[in-house]
Amino acid sequence: MQLARIIGDIVATRKDDNLAGLTLLVLQPLAADGSAAGRTLVAVDAVGSGVGETVFFVRGKEASFPFYPTEVPADAGIVGIVDRWDLG
Amino acid sequence: MQLARIIGDIVATRKDDNLAGLTLLVLQPLAADGSAAGRTLVAVDAVGSGVGETVFFVRGKEASFPFYPTEVPADAGIVGIVDRWDLG
Amino acid sequence: MQLARIIGDIVATRKDDNLAGLTLLVLQPLAADGSAAGRTLVAVDAVGSGVGETVFFVRGKEASFPFYPTEVPADAGIVGIVDRWDLG
Amino acid sequence: MQLARIIGDIVATRKDDNLAGLTLLVLQPLAADGSAAGRTLVAVDAVGSGVGETVFFVRGKEASFPFYPTEVPADAGIVGIVDRWDLG
Amino acid sequence: MQLARIIGDIVATRKDDNLAGLTLLVLQPLAADGSAAGRTLVAVDAVGSGVGETVFFVRGKEASFPFYPTEVPADAGIVGIVDRWDLG
Repeated sequence: MQLARIIGDIVATRKDDNLAGLTLLVLQPLAADGSAAGRTLVAVDAVGSGVGETVFFVRGKEASFPFYPTEVPADAGIVGIVDRWDLG
Repeated sequence: MQLARIIGDIVATRKDDNLAGLTLLVLQPLAADGSAAGRTLVAVDAVGSGVGETVFFVRGKEASFPFYPTEVPADAGIVGIVDRWDLG
Repeated sequence: MQLARIIGDIVATRKDDNLAGLTLLVLQPLAADGSAAGRTLVAVDAVGSGVGETVFFVRGKEASFPFYPTEVPADAGIVGIVDRWDLG
Repeated sequence: MQLARIIGDIVATRKDDNLAGLTLLVLQPLAADGSAAGRTLVAVDAVGSGVGETVFFVRGKEASFPFYPTEVPADAGIVGIVDRWDLG
Repeated sequence: MQLARIIGDIVATRKDDNLAGLTLLVLQPLAADGSAAGRTLVAVDAVGSGVGETVFFVRGKEASFPFYPTEVPADAGIVGIVDRWDLG
């Protein structure tokens, strides 16, 4: 998974039926020091997160696990909201 | 998923049987600011999109979900047409 | 999927049993303008392609779909020969 | 898999139910010479590892195999603690 | 798949049970011209290869296919030893 900040959302009227009702958010991945790291991407939300929050997200088919048995065609999904992270 | 603009299409007479009848489009991925970001790729279309439109696409086996139960050998698929995106 | 040119082939006597009889080709991925883009890789052929042809290939488990039910341990497979592509 | 050093951990109260009780660690991937190589990431722990240890981790759905039959939505998992590695 | 040279091995006493007895090797991926290309990684061996040999390996869940039905948590596996490759 990767840390990310939610920086926006997507409006898409025409989309695959199995994405209906899901929130599509724009993420900026973060490095461990909190700086931007890598390209922005679009993810589905599985935990009720919103713009401005720091989260971690999963890539790949695992992104659709929280919506099982619906086969959501998503390759990135927010699976946790980060309270804080500690570098030891 | 990633944002992308559809910049072309592919003509391929000889291809895997499970790709027959599918539209193969050339995509330019986009960053959140709308600039080109990353390499062009070929994706199947699941939502009736066409050249010039802004879409979001999914990578991996999820690209074949909209065509289930056909096991389409595709690793990138357009799953939504973007009306707009908002950076908050 | 990505566009690629077939630039070579591999001879491997000792390999996983489920690769026996398959053609292993060396690919150079291409950008939409036809220039080389990214690292060379090894792919299995599912459409009868050969050295010098322009093709598109799929990454991931989807590469083994054309050989089902054999579980071919391949992560890249050629699934179409490109007649031409058009940028619009 | 990749070698990595565990450099931190994550506290996340709100997360997908199938992540409950799992340890979420921040990893710095390492090259074969032990230098940092690539972006930090978040992984689940399957072997009782902790901050400061050198481990190897797996990416993709395989990260959830140790937790089967729970469908853990993770794309990176620590599957071994490295005693040493030898370059020959 | 990618070409690679085996440059080392890993000793890991504590690891996931489904990795027990498997050989963990350190690979340096190679470009088609034989030069090093990309980061070193750790792979399981499915063909009896060893340090110094040139091989090709598969990434992703396919890496575990040779060990089926054991669900090996590996994302890279050596599936062939290269006798030679020819660029045409």
